[in-house]
Amino acid sequence: MITNLRSEIKALNGNTKGILFLYSFRFSAYFSRNKIMRIIGFPIRLFYTFFVQWMMGIDIYDTTQIGRGFNVYHGQGLIISSSVIIGENVIVRQNTTIGNANKNGKCPVIGNNVEIGANSVVIGDIAIGDNSIIAAGSVVIKDVPKNCIVAGNPAKIVKYF
Amino acid sequence: MITNLRSEIKALNGNTKGILFLYSFRFSAYFSRNKIMRIIGFPIRLFYTFFVQWMMGIDIYDTTQIGRGFNVYHGQGLIISSSVIIGENVIVRQNTTIGNANKNGKCPVIGNNVEIGANSVVIGDIAIGDNSIIAAGSVVIKDVPKNCIVAGNPAKIVKYF
Amino acid sequence: MITNLRSEIKALNGNTKGILFLYSFRFSAYFSRNKIMRIIGFPIRLFYTFFVQWMMGIDIYDTTQIGRGFNVYHGQGLIISSSVIIGENVIVRQNTTIGNANKNGKCPVIGNNVEIGANSVVIGDIAIGDNSIIAAGSVVIKDVPKNCIVAGNPAKIVKYF
Repeated sequence: MITNLRSEIKALNGNTKGILFLYSFRFSAYFSRNKIMRIIGFPIRLFYTFFVQWMMGIDIYDTTQIGRGFNVYHGQGLIISSSVIIGENVIVRQNTTIGNANKNGKCPVIGNNVEIGANSVVIGDIAIGDNSIIAAGSVVIKDVPKNCIVAGNPAKIVKYF
Repeated sequence: MITNLRSEIKALNGNTKGILFLYSFRFSAYFSRNKIMRIIGFPIRLFYTFFVQWMMGIDIYDTTQIGRGFNVYHGQGLIISSSVIIGENVIVRQNTTIGNANKNGKCPVIGNNVEIGANSVVIGDIAIGDNSIIAAGSVVIKDVPKNCIVAGNPAKIVKYF
Repeated sequence: MITNLRSEIKALNGNTKGILFLYSFRFSAYFSRNKIMRIIGFPIRLFYTFFVQWMMGIDIYDTTQIGRGFNVYHGQGLIISSSVIIGENVIVRQNTTIGNANKNGKCPVIGNNVEIGANSVVIGDIAIGDNSIIAAGSVVIKDVPKNCIVAGNPAKIVKYF
């Protein structure tokens, strides 16, 4: 766990808050693996919920499946449902919602190297393709293919790489 | 007050943060009724302002008129002006603004069983009809009739029930 | 500094949180001027970062160039990059992002008497003209001329004064 985290942190390259978040998240996630760990790690997970999710407003459950190289900028008002699946080297920002569109609905699956702009909404049973960029302020309710930029409300493809 | 609150809480059905918010809000609102109550309840109201409005980012004044069964999910960046009137069983989410469109302008009146999606804006002297749904990321600046879904920026009706 | 601040605060006219923010910001900015000041003011700047930027969610670096009469309403989820230049008597609100559109990209220059609505995005190497209004929920990625109102995603001019 420690070696992985170290290489992840290195990639964050000076984003203090992102580093702090990632440490807290991976640490809290480590104690969410099984019943015994959850009992031992209860104070750590409580601290994570209270301080990171409630106070800092980075509302990501520690059981969320998130790949390596996850990068959070600012993060206030960032809400990610616990059923969202996130690939490697994904970048997310502030005031963003990633989750289900209806009660008990499915959540997005985010590919690798995806970048999501500030003030975005990504909801429903959709997939976001590798290397794609979701522009700031987008409302994404449909699948996004690989290697493109989407923007607008509702979001449409504006460019292919 | 206690009996009402108990049935309200029951309806929240496991939304821990929503329950915590509702207790804090109803409790603080109880001490905002008249001058004497406001003197007695000063520390409670101060705690509510500081902890719930400023730290958790659920910025709803305790004098706001909110019907029973009010349900807040996540709530970071949720700002509701104190002159907004909210009906029963209304659901609100994070990164949402409900208030006046211009300085000293009037605020929305929200009907019963209305559901408001994340990252929405609902502003001006408008009425939101019963049972309607405002989709995530909508910017609502005109009246919304009963039993419909609105979406987009500016929000338009996309479906009737 | 004190006299300037006093006249600024007077203009805020009862916006308690805005006043608290402005005091904290100007005070922390005062200690960011040079190396010696930064050493003396380290605890103050740390408090500002932790309490105002992280906890209250008003994420504005104390080195940002902001003119007199700056007015923040609510401010949760308000992120302004440190390279943004803001004129006099500018009003900003909650859930708003002002910054660069791409990594290492340039940031907006905001004129005087500009008012920016809630849940807005203003990004890229653009200029916002004096006296203009950016409506709530706008996504601004192009220059905005003087004396107009822009709205929508992407934002377009809807009215000239």
